[in-house]
Amino acid sequence: MTKRAVILTSGGLDSATVLAMAYRQGVQCYALSFDYGQRHRAELLAAARVAEAFPGTLHKTVGLDLRGIGGSALTDDAIDVPVEPTEGIPVTYVPARNTVFLSIALGWAEVLEADEIHIGVNAVDYSGYPDCRPAFIAAFEDMAATATKAGVEGNPIKIVTPIISLSKADIIRRGIELGVDYSLTTSCYQATETGLACGVCDSCRLRRQGFEEAGVPDATRYA
Amino acid sequence: MTKRAVILTSGGLDSATVLAMAYRQGVQCYALSFDYGQRHRAELLAAARVAEAFPGTLHKTVGLDLRGIGGSALTDDAIDVPVEPTEGIPVTYVPARNTVFLSIALGWAEVLEADEIHIGVNAVDYSGYPDCRPAFIAAFEDMAATATKAGVEGNPIKIVTPIISLSKADIIRRGIELGVDYSLTTSCYQATETGLACGVCDSCRLRRQGFEEAGVPDATRYA
Repeated sequence: MTKRAVILTSGGLDSATVLAMAYRQGVQCYALSFDYGQRHRAELLAAARVAEAFPGTLHKTVGLDLRGIGGSALTDDAIDVPVEPTEGIPVTYVPARNTVFLSIALGWAEVLEADEIHIGVNAVDYSGYPDCRPAFIAAFEDMAATATKAGVEGNPIKIVTPIISLSKADIIRRGIELGVDYSLTTSCYQATETGLACGVCDSCRLRRQGFEEAGVPDATRYA
Repeated sequence: MTKRAVILTSGGLDSATVLAMAYRQGVQCYALSFDYGQRHRAELLAAARVAEAFPGTLHKTVGLDLRGIGGSALTDDAIDVPVEPTEGIPVTYVPARNTVFLSIALGWAEVLEADEIHIGVNAVDYSGYPDCRPAFIAAFEDMAATATKAGVEGNPIKIVTPIISLSKADIIRRGIELGVDYSLTTSCYQATETGLACGVCDSCRLRRQGFEEAGVPDATRYA
């Protein structure tokens, strides 16, 4: 039977690679994005472009007003996005974001009777976010097994993290092998409406280094 | 120091009692409701009335389009609300709803630097929902400790379930002692716009029995 998976798809480089990995393995993919009050719409447009590049993938965007709770440079215009690496957990951390995204993915996975949820968290270049670590993913999977009808009935939904231990360069090499067109993706924390990257934020810096280390041309469109 | 807690406030009888319990203990309360595509707006109006009854409580409603993922009689008009008790997990179960609600509460709790999240789940009259059981709450608390900045820094947020082992009658008795005005609340799955209850759905049935067993007049306004 064809495996079915909800794939968290942000429009960025990491999740595009995760989607490509699942798709090439023959998984029926359900791409899920969130309109959560992020600084720019460019990443939602990028997510739609990425999902379209894999024919047969159903793409859904769920609205969620995380701006209401505030607390992050990514959802609060009053907090600036830093342009230098910072110590500890940075202000771009959105409180409990991956928990919220995985929870909604869990709800959709239950409705779809999907087997897995795939998320492009990365514990190597992880930017100091607590909810990108393997310990968090394992705890979420345990919680999900108790939370859902599927889990209670003995078919717990698995949380799959195919790039959690890869470097940014390895992720890019893997994506290139699988035919990912990274010019479709937007990683920048403060991209322009048309998806041009600032080139100076933490996310741009990690991405640029990744392309350099992978030895492939940087497909990013800079402002 | 005053304890701070996010209180999930649905507009129903259970969460109104939970809010009263925390408030009377001197907890600084932050009431959180969700506009998640439920069948009627009456419960959001009820939630606002309930929060107002406890002066100094901040009330926030977060929008979230769970209708997008479907799968429940409460968020899909194509699925009827049953009027008879059913075996197993009923169609009024909203996939992963408490997981999603607690996750967003977790994000707000992080921003507020709150100590606790209070939720009115009940494992006695629990209607067969997997995400109302103690095992789920414990697993969520463990997950939250790994997910958040607060948890990583050694101050995990506690999930408090003050009515989890009380019968509906005991909940009502406790609420009456604390001065809860249950006429402000709406429990019905298919209340009218003005909050009148159908009197026949599973939720109405449990509520009515609770008032009978508690030996207090039923404050519910029926259609």
